[in-house]
Amino acid sequence: MLKRTSEYLKSLGLTGPTVIIDETRARANIHSMADKARRSGVAFRPHFKTHQSPVVGRWFTDEGVDRITVSSVGMAEQFAECGWSDITIAFLLNPLELPRVRNLAEYLDRRSGRLGLTVDSVAAARMASGLDVPVAVWLKVDTGYGRTGIRWDDHQKLHAVLAQCRGLTTAVGLLTHSGHSYEARGTGEIATIYDEAVARMNAARESCAQPDLALSFGDTPCCSVVDDLSVCDEIRPGNFVFYDLMQLQIGSCTETQLAAAAVCPVVGIYPERNQVVVHGGAVHLSKESLQLEDGRKIYGKLGSLEIGERSPEGDPGPAGLGRVLDKAAMVSLSQEHGVIECAPDSFSRLFGNLEIGDLVVVWPVHSCLMCDLQRDLSTLPGIRPKKGAR
Amino acid sequence: MLKRTSEYLKSLGLTGPTVIIDETRARANIHSMADKARRSGVAFRPHFKTHQSPVVGRWFTDEGVDRITVSSVGMAEQFAECGWSDITIAFLLNPLELPRVRNLAEYLDRRSGRLGLTVDSVAAARMASGLDVPVAVWLKVDTGYGRTGIRWDDHQKLHAVLAQCRGLTTAVGLLTHSGHSYEARGTGEIATIYDEAVARMNAARESCAQPDLALSFGDTPCCSVVDDLSVCDEIRPGNFVFYDLMQLQIGSCTETQLAAAAVCPVVGIYPERNQVVVHGGAVHLSKESLQLEDGRKIYGKLGSLEIGERSPEGDPGPAGLGRVLDKAAMVSLSQEHGVIECAPDSFSRLFGNLEIGDLVVVWPVHSCLMCDLQRDLSTLPGIRPKKGAR
Repeated sequence: MLKRTSEYLKSLGLTGPTVIIDETRARANIHSMADKARRSGVAFRPHFKTHQSPVVGRWFTDEGVDRITVSSVGMAEQFAECGWSDITIAFLLNPLELPRVRNLAEYLDRRSGRLGLTVDSVAAARMASGLDVPVAVWLKVDTGYGRTGIRWDDHQKLHAVLAQCRGLTTAVGLLTHSGHSYEARGTGEIATIYDEAVARMNAARESCAQPDLALSFGDTPCCSVVDDLSVCDEIRPGNFVFYDLMQLQIGSCTETQLAAAAVCPVVGIYPERNQVVVHGGAVHLSKESLQLEDGRKIYGKLGSLEIGERSPEGDPGPAGLGRVLDKAAMVSLSQEHGVIECAPDSFSRLFGNLEIGDLVVVWPVHSCLMCDLQRDLSTLPGIRPKKGAR
Repeated sequence: MLKRTSEYLKSLGLTGPTVIIDETRARANIHSMADKARRSGVAFRPHFKTHQSPVVGRWFTDEGVDRITVSSVGMAEQFAECGWSDITIAFLLNPLELPRVRNLAEYLDRRSGRLGLTVDSVAAARMASGLDVPVAVWLKVDTGYGRTGIRWDDHQKLHAVLAQCRGLTTAVGLLTHSGHSYEARGTGEIATIYDEAVARMNAARESCAQPDLALSFGDTPCCSVVDDLSVCDEIRPGNFVFYDLMQLQIGSCTETQLAAAAVCPVVGIYPERNQVVVHGGAVHLSKESLQLEDGRKIYGKLGSLEIGERSPEGDPGPAGLGRVLDKAAMVSLSQEHGVIECAPDSFSRLFGNLEIGDLVVVWPVHSCLMCDLQRDLSTLPGIRPKKGAR
């Protein structure tokens, strides 16, 4: 099976570490989330930090998406250049970037769009609201993750920050990212975190005595697992477009929703220690790791392609990403090297006919970081290199 | 102290995450290693994967360095374009890249230079030696790290691979990377690993009955700590140019040799949990972590600048990187956010007068991965953005 995957990838001209995207799966993930947002009657503002790709961005346009989330001013500028005009930077305003932010807000305003800014302090709210161009201002609320934001029950601070939001501010809302859902396992635990976040956001809004404050929620686990999101006004998941091993472990997705993987050439074969070494290291996959139930720390798992029948002309059949091969995992990772190890009884079956220069598929632990590292995404079927946003 | 550091960095026009290099320290690190190589009578072929910068490359030229090591064909091509002509790719040959390798070898040969290739299999040695242009071929030897290479005591394989090295091969040697020195702590443990690697490389050479086989050694801990490297023919350390917290923990360097850090803007301040949040995440520093002696896992430590007196004209004084502030560490890291936490009794002293938009210095755990992520290195004193190799 690995040999067939390798032959297929070689026939497409791949020679080195490459990110491949299963377009069919990614579009299905986008459709599924867009559809849930429609059914729930909430705005869908997907986070584009996962893919950072104008091409993947257009798959969202095809689903009617017209507003996005990004995590830096630079990313906002890049997607503004791609034609997006309603952009929220879901990262706290950096005062040193105020001139760039102002210019971008003006650019979007001229295109009948709007720049959204995120603040959690009186100082930042004052700066955002003091701009001479219209912006939306979101108050970041900490509903339990403990990274940034005003604690949901710190009414005094919520009121103080909110009091700054006037001037040319065109809209105000409360925004949270329940990142602690990444510690959850299974639907039940994720739903509990979601329910708690909803209750806390509602309490924060009530304390502000502004019932028209919009509520924006963000994380992939909650948005994937909870069926009815109608208590939100807006959702901002990002990772769901590709998912990854981390989300699979959390329970946010199924194996057949995994839509991004790394293609890596095999450069060393070591049957005596049940290992192969690939060109695919920390600069390709990131050092994000995952602890398995048996305690092992891994940096990826082996995968395969699903390949259709050859055409009568002998062209390779349509192919997509396949399964997670649980018998083999990337057990160590340095700058350029990845070490893939399999169970001792699986080496000859899995790797027996592999040669150096064969290409294997590796599922990443964290697709966002992998795509940030390797900006040129290629898509299956019919791999073609895509130019990323930077 | 942090405020003064911030004011200085702002006066240089920095606004977002930036890598700063202390040129004085980096040049001292280069001089020290080059000098040790000269005293030991060994060739110095520094690994350029750490900085990947043409500018830093010239600091090596200033020390008389005329040969380098890289970890990918792409990196070799980039430095060939910068004028380097004697380049070893210390990463196993990927057969799919053979056409690029051949072209590069020809390019270097025309410039009276030479491309070095690394192999650990009969198949790869045959490909390297079968090229129609001259190359140097290095047999990768595993002296205990267990990542790639032929085991030092696998004489049969050593002989079989060596037997392939003929044709236009202009030189052959044995090359090792004792990466397990990264698990060592202190001079004694590092020296033990070095002595063992030397013994194993000598044994491998003896078994080949070719006393003229060159021996090339690679890692920063051993090359930093061992005084007399004269048993080697060549050394290839890379990280030593900047060092980092990992090397400091291993015992390869002192605090005043740390030459690369990240400048990060403060975007959130949370005295109630002794934390500040900066724009500086996994996409800037990498997810490389370090376990402290107290068991905590950290992603960086807080630093400062050493700043000279202002000039009579009011210009900022000359500045360089300063100390490691052990009271504060980066305790968590997501894609764009870094959370810096300090001891409860230190918050007001350390962070009491900080505001959002202030700039702090963060020492990275692993400078190679940080520099790979942020290619535009800036140098102190007199920061000026430098364009990286890609």
